[in-house]
Amino acid sequence: MPNRSPIGIFDSGLGGLTVFKEIRKILPGEDLIYFGDTARVPYGNKSKETIIKYSKEISGFLIRKGVKIIVIACNTSSSLAMDDLRREVKIPVFGVIEPGAKKAAAVSGGRTIAVIGTQATIKSTAYSRAILQEFKNRGLAFGKVIEKSCPLLVPIVEEGLGLGTGNGFGRDIAKRIVSYYLDPVKQENPYCLVLGCTHYPIIKDLIEGVVGKGMEIIDSGVEAALFIKNFLEKENMLKEGEVSGINQFFVSDDPGRFVELGGKFLNMNIENIGIISDFT
Amino acid sequence: MPNRSPIGIFDSGLGGLTVFKEIRKILPGEDLIYFGDTARVPYGNKSKETIIKYSKEISGFLIRKGVKIIVIACNTSSSLAMDDLRREVKIPVFGVIEPGAKKAAAVSGGRTIAVIGTQATIKSTAYSRAILQEFKNRGLAFGKVIEKSCPLLVPIVEEGLGLGTGNGFGRDIAKRIVSYYLDPVKQENPYCLVLGCTHYPIIKDLIEGVVGKGMEIIDSGVEAALFIKNFLEKENMLKEGEVSGINQFFVSDDPGRFVELGGKFLNMNIENIGIISDFT
Repeated sequence: MPNRSPIGIFDSGLGGLTVFKEIRKILPGEDLIYFGDTARVPYGNKSKETIIKYSKEISGFLIRKGVKIIVIACNTSSSLAMDDLRREVKIPVFGVIEPGAKKAAAVSGGRTIAVIGTQATIKSTAYSRAILQEFKNRGLAFGKVIEKSCPLLVPIVEEGLGLGTGNGFGRDIAKRIVSYYLDPVKQENPYCLVLGCTHYPIIKDLIEGVVGKGMEIIDSGVEAALFIKNFLEKENMLKEGEVSGINQFFVSDDPGRFVELGGKFLNMNIENIGIISDFT
Repeated sequence: MPNRSPIGIFDSGLGGLTVFKEIRKILPGEDLIYFGDTARVPYGNKSKETIIKYSKEISGFLIRKGVKIIVIACNTSSSLAMDDLRREVKIPVFGVIEPGAKKAAAVSGGRTIAVIGTQATIKSTAYSRAILQEFKNRGLAFGKVIEKSCPLLVPIVEEGLGLGTGNGFGRDIAKRIVSYYLDPVKQENPYCLVLGCTHYPIIKDLIEGVVGKGMEIIDSGVEAALFIKNFLEKENMLKEGEVSGINQFFVSDDPGRFVELGGKFLNMNIENIGIISDFT
């Protein structure tokens, strides 16, 4: 029996909209509820305990909204809160780490893989562990995984420097910051690069410009969307029908900035937005 | 009668330590309690309502600790929450805006003043309003006030790029970002520049390098420390005595990063630190 309940998606703020966009593209008929924790953003340099606490609060909110599955559209929260959420929550929970790691292991064939992300994601070593597990599952020789935190990339995306909205000088700065982080990674000659933060797809062209065309770039959000589609099909949980799905957005702070910058991320007007300032 | 209670100081995170440092320097005998809201940092791009809510929670905590005055060592919170806090709290509350604005008006003699800060501080126009009021009080002709938000400066300070701990390439990026924001300001030829964010004193030398020696740089934290000392003297609220004051720190998230980066800010080891994850 098809399941007509919405899909719940959450992130610390705006970044998860890149995952939302991929899910919307691949599952046009599903109703989607997105929650951005804009009052407490960013999660990337916060502790595991704090991130678990925030993730549980948001999941509780989404469940009360009647969602059929929860997608953690945030690499930091996927790295640190996934196991706790899966233990606590009765509906299926998906993150972005596992799909990204599976894809990286598949394309690399055991060769060196590079992963970039926030401080908290990289410190968790969630990608290394997931990739090495996947190598093992596929019976491949253990490849090397290089993990590199890039704390300035989220702020430059949020400042619009990489979006081409900054002037030429701004874009040049954004490129230099990308080089600052990725030049040392390039020297290790990895076969592919995993964008382990949902903000990074926004500056994918800048990153490609720095690492060169030879290195395959893996967007964990794209892989997560595919993963979720397969799951819903297999479990017969798709909404089905020809009608386009509804988008609903919630944030924990004033929606002004979310609507403005998020609209640029999604290339659409963000409407139907609510504010949730208390999770209890 | 002297007042031996501690002084409470709070900030969204680490930045306020530059104000703590100035207060410690000028009032060596006072006991100081510093609270950094590291679980919810940064405040700079959050809404007024959220910042007021957080500021009230922290003030309540400091009052329960028995502080004699509260210092808001955060420009964003000073801009947005000061009036509400003063209405709610029974002890004196000081911010960093008023002292910085007074000094700027005094040295400029009515000439153009530039102010840099976070998005929320600049959007509030708190500095413009305080400076124009001060011009009025002094019977000076209204000078022009240029306000400019610089959202990337906090992240580059927190990433250590401006501290000289990054390599030469990192410092070059930091300098370019400062130029990106300040070159347009320089063209207006202001007489002085107010550092309207407590992170900025950390990269004062970089900022000086960009704007040149001709422009006086005003550190609101230094002015706030002087202001507070004068107030405590006048009200006979100094602790007095020859014994050095005690430093106590509280944060709302894991203290690891605070201790590491904050130690660099203060140039001392941060000890005597507690975690407060619930304000109720």
